[in-house]
Amino acid sequence: MAPSPRAASPELESMMKESADAVNKTIRHLLPESDLPEAPLYEAMRYGTLNGGKRLRPFMVCQAAKLFGVDEMRARRTAAALECLHSYSLIHDDLPAMDNADTRRGKPSTHVEFDEATAILAGDALLTFAFEVLSNEETHADPRVRIELVNMLAVAAGGHGMVGGQMLDLIGEGEEFDLGTISRMQRMKTGKLMAFACESGAVLGKAGEVFRRALRNYAYDLGLAFQVTDDVLDVEESPSVLGKPANQDEAAGKSTFVSTMGKEQAKQRAEMLVEQAVRHLHVFDGRADTLIELAYYVLERRA
Amino acid sequence: MAPSPRAASPELESMMKESADAVNKTIRHLLPESDLPEAPLYEAMRYGTLNGGKRLRPFMVCQAAKLFGVDEMRARRTAAALECLHSYSLIHDDLPAMDNADTRRGKPSTHVEFDEATAILAGDALLTFAFEVLSNEETHADPRVRIELVNMLAVAAGGHGMVGGQMLDLIGEGEEFDLGTISRMQRMKTGKLMAFACESGAVLGKAGEVFRRALRNYAYDLGLAFQVTDDVLDVEESPSVLGKPANQDEAAGKSTFVSTMGKEQAKQRAEMLVEQAVRHLHVFDGRADTLIELAYYVLERRA
Repeated sequence: MAPSPRAASPELESMMKESADAVNKTIRHLLPESDLPEAPLYEAMRYGTLNGGKRLRPFMVCQAAKLFGVDEMRARRTAAALECLHSYSLIHDDLPAMDNADTRRGKPSTHVEFDEATAILAGDALLTFAFEVLSNEETHADPRVRIELVNMLAVAAGGHGMVGGQMLDLIGEGEEFDLGTISRMQRMKTGKLMAFACESGAVLGKAGEVFRRALRNYAYDLGLAFQVTDDVLDVEESPSVLGKPANQDEAAGKSTFVSTMGKEQAKQRAEMLVEQAVRHLHVFDGRADTLIELAYYVLERRA
Repeated sequence: MAPSPRAASPELESMMKESADAVNKTIRHLLPESDLPEAPLYEAMRYGTLNGGKRLRPFMVCQAAKLFGVDEMRARRTAAALECLHSYSLIHDDLPAMDNADTRRGKPSTHVEFDEATAILAGDALLTFAFEVLSNEETHADPRVRIELVNMLAVAAGGHGMVGGQMLDLIGEGEEFDLGTISRMQRMKTGKLMAFACESGAVLGKAGEVFRRALRNYAYDLGLAFQVTDDVLDVEESPSVLGKPANQDEAAGKSTFVSTMGKEQAKQRAEMLVEQAVRHLHVFDGRADTLIELAYYVLERRA
């Protein structure tokens, strides 16, 4: 067995790029242009999703699915559904009443490009659409697989998952959170969707609990590492690199890993979490090297 | 066979009240109070759903389910999921960027009682929760039934259904719609969820297509009748009766059935639609009298 990678290879970024292109193609196919009178809704849905994101979560879905020999189109549909859901959360997050962010990935946010009402509705429609795609039989022939995906995504994305994490985030603007609360918030906000990303690949492949748990735990640790590095990037990088305003967290008076433990300790924590994430993948006996590289990529990324 | 009812009986309202109480109990059970730090989210979700609505859609679910001998708890869970989804749409509709309505059912709207960000998130969480409830095995033991409910609801509520109808509604503030466009908009905004309400009862009971189509078509005609009477009530009734501002549509410059065809013709249209709705139920051979009465109730209601 070859030793596991300890860093992201140059090939990883081209694999991610290829995977992003494939998922974008699937999203474009699922969300075609329209000439109906309500077309601005569909335009805003496309604008909010097809915006040059790195497609980290879709990459996780597809790589995890590959471990179990899942048909690529099924993986891509699941990935596209997840990305629609992720995109809805960004559209709503950017709204004036929420984070009030005018730009996203270097372009006007959806409510700036369209208007607030259209952005709210586009987010609502994308969230709903994620469940439409997952529940469609093209995503998997077995209804038990589809219903498990639907339930997992709903639990991960709802009040006890992502949206609950957003609520905590808002509450955090007014008060100081300790490290435990910040970690819990980030696990809800980011970790649960990443866990869905990785575990959904195993569900599509009807994999056993050992593999599901390994992928889930990998995702939780990596999700937290992702958020810690996000907090570091927020204080270190310029808006032009980030494609969004820098120092957003401090400006909003939010507790972050950096504000709580300092930048250097935060960086060490991220490294430790990535090592821990990678260890969960040992059950795959060297077959999960791309996901291992992905973990180092999260640590090394600059935006 | 006894002749079918031609009007709502006094018993109907008490049946509706009893059904509403049962569904509220289910919603309360599904959305328990919380002492977590993000509790305001759950409070807003409860506030936005447990607000004394008539629970028309849940009543439809339960009455349709009864035609096929469906277990009551299953019907109530489906009804509760639908009501969570309906409530999310009202919460988002009332937002300042949308209809900017300060009151709903005689009480402050969710964004007034809490704040805009919490209202947006509570709506998002309720929408997500609807799919969590439907996909849970307590709603039906057969995953094929659950996945069909999920897919039907997603299609009915998304960009080609309710949310698309909302978008049309917003666009309508700037231009005059003809009767065809208004009807299409209302079918999307209201009809599709009502069709889900009635058809879901048949899906839970694994009923054949003849019965499913009858219930679906009943719901479409009744949904349109409901909207026509809504437009009439909007110009006829006082805010204290409606529990929300009157003349909202005219103030927003929206085309309605009343503005397009006049009040008297709108009333006639509503009557005709109710007659048509009722005729679809003849396949049930007198067993669907409660749904028939419900159709007349929609016509006769004052709020």
